[in-house]
Amino acid sequence: MIMIGEKINGSIASVAKAIKERDEAFIRRLALRQTECGADYLDIAAGTAPNREKEALVWLISVVQDTVDTPLCIDSTDCGMIRAMLPYVKKPGMINSVSEERGKCDQLLPEIADSEWKIIALTCDDRGISTDPAVKLAIAEAIIGKAKTLGIEEERLFVDPAVTALSTTGDSLMSFTETTRLIKERFPSVHITSGLSNISFGLPHRKAINQQFFCLALAAGMDSAIMDPTSPDMRAVLYATEALLGEDRLCRRYLQAYRKGLIGTKTPVNSGAEQLSE
Amino acid sequence: MIMIGEKINGSIASVAKAIKERDEAFIRRLALRQTECGADYLDIAAGTAPNREKEALVWLISVVQDTVDTPLCIDSTDCGMIRAMLPYVKKPGMINSVSEERGKCDQLLPEIADSEWKIIALTCDDRGISTDPAVKLAIAEAIIGKAKTLGIEEERLFVDPAVTALSTTGDSLMSFTETTRLIKERFPSVHITSGLSNISFGLPHRKAINQQFFCLALAAGMDSAIMDPTSPDMRAVLYATEALLGEDRLCRRYLQAYRKGLIGTKTPVNSGAEQLSE
Repeated sequence: MIMIGEKINGSIASVAKAIKERDEAFIRRLALRQTECGADYLDIAAGTAPNREKEALVWLISVVQDTVDTPLCIDSTDCGMIRAMLPYVKKPGMINSVSEERGKCDQLLPEIADSEWKIIALTCDDRGISTDPAVKLAIAEAIIGKAKTLGIEEERLFVDPAVTALSTTGDSLMSFTETTRLIKERFPSVHITSGLSNISFGLPHRKAINQQFFCLALAAGMDSAIMDPTSPDMRAVLYATEALLGEDRLCRRYLQAYRKGLIGTKTPVNSGAEQLSE
Repeated sequence: MIMIGEKINGSIASVAKAIKERDEAFIRRLALRQTECGADYLDIAAGTAPNREKEALVWLISVVQDTVDTPLCIDSTDCGMIRAMLPYVKKPGMINSVSEERGKCDQLLPEIADSEWKIIALTCDDRGISTDPAVKLAIAEAIIGKAKTLGIEEERLFVDPAVTALSTTGDSLMSFTETTRLIKERFPSVHITSGLSNISFGLPHRKAINQQFFCLALAAGMDSAIMDPTSPDMRAVLYATEALLGEDRLCRRYLQAYRKGLIGTKTPVNSGAEQLSE
């Protein structure tokens, strides 16, 4: 499971405040805490007005790279902005995201073809987000096809099947798992990723829905997630589900996570008494 | 989902004490709380030494029947004891359990054939508990065959695939889901049930494993569970998973459970400030 830490995102009020006030310590702490909790990549999203996005991203990238070696996942809806950020990033990380929307794919893929950058490919196009697995598959196939033409290996692609809210589309999970099955069947080396909270939009006690979505999505073959690695609940779902699915021989990772205090307590061993989850 | 409340069981220390001291109020509270939380059946197990099992069960049955109308699930490893209890029970409930072990099946099935009693059939025999789905299926088939010969409908049978501890058999979940699939394929009207805590035996932070087992077992087709209905965590897993699996149109049951305080809080609306989970 490849964990993309979601917490450095300006659409979260406390992060927006830290960006506004250039509060380095706050951002450093988020970078460190997510890394300690096992994040493989750190998502970096400014979430600000477009005219301030560039300076915010440059500052965030600089602070985070100065704190940890964890690769970054550059997150913007503006693919020109993503391209502008590439020179500021020390080592290839991940791009969040391309899609078949407004030619994003065609602008970004050539740019990173001859590098080691990985790419999240969202299954939406100018028609929006479909719930039909066949449509999602067709969009994924188009992006994967373009990437292959450019010599980008399947292993560098992370398809995000763009899960919809369960409260409005009752078949959100089935659409996600069927899309995952179809993509894994055709492209076994392509990764499947997803955010874990869109599905519960509009429902109360969202974490119950998010947790069981995480479990069922892992069972369906999702092998990456854009998530809060500092949440003991989410980590518990991850390690328990991997053990149950037979992907953790002798429950070694589960037991190790328990010993490190990553599950079963809110205080990881290396962080003293600090409360990790927000 | 047919919920069998597991809390009136003498192998739990507080219940053993209540049985010993004939503490009616304690047992009444467990019966009421489980019923308020949606239990369809209340499991009644004495968990005492064999020489005191009969009087303990008779007392428990009397106290519980005097408190709630919820049907009982008479639980004993001694099928002679189960037969002896039937006259004390006001209305047909469930028997926990028969198996192909020591002829239990042959002793109990004829007794309840011409009634409305339901039966939990554990997939073990005199060789013990196998992890091989084919062996589990063969035992289930034998019991279902005997039941059919006696005119007992599939709907009255609850097969318990006897889940093993993940810490010793790494394929516990896969064995469970494969057995469930095989049985549902051949006998679509037979129910599948299971306890939710055997799987985590020997592991730390057991509730994480139990919760994700519950979720994945529901996804595999389990339609009943022997569980703690007073646990807000377990109820949250149940309602969230049913909603995700598309078995809860417009998330109605999920929203209703939330409004009733059955998820998202530890205090159901009808119980004042009482802490429900123990």
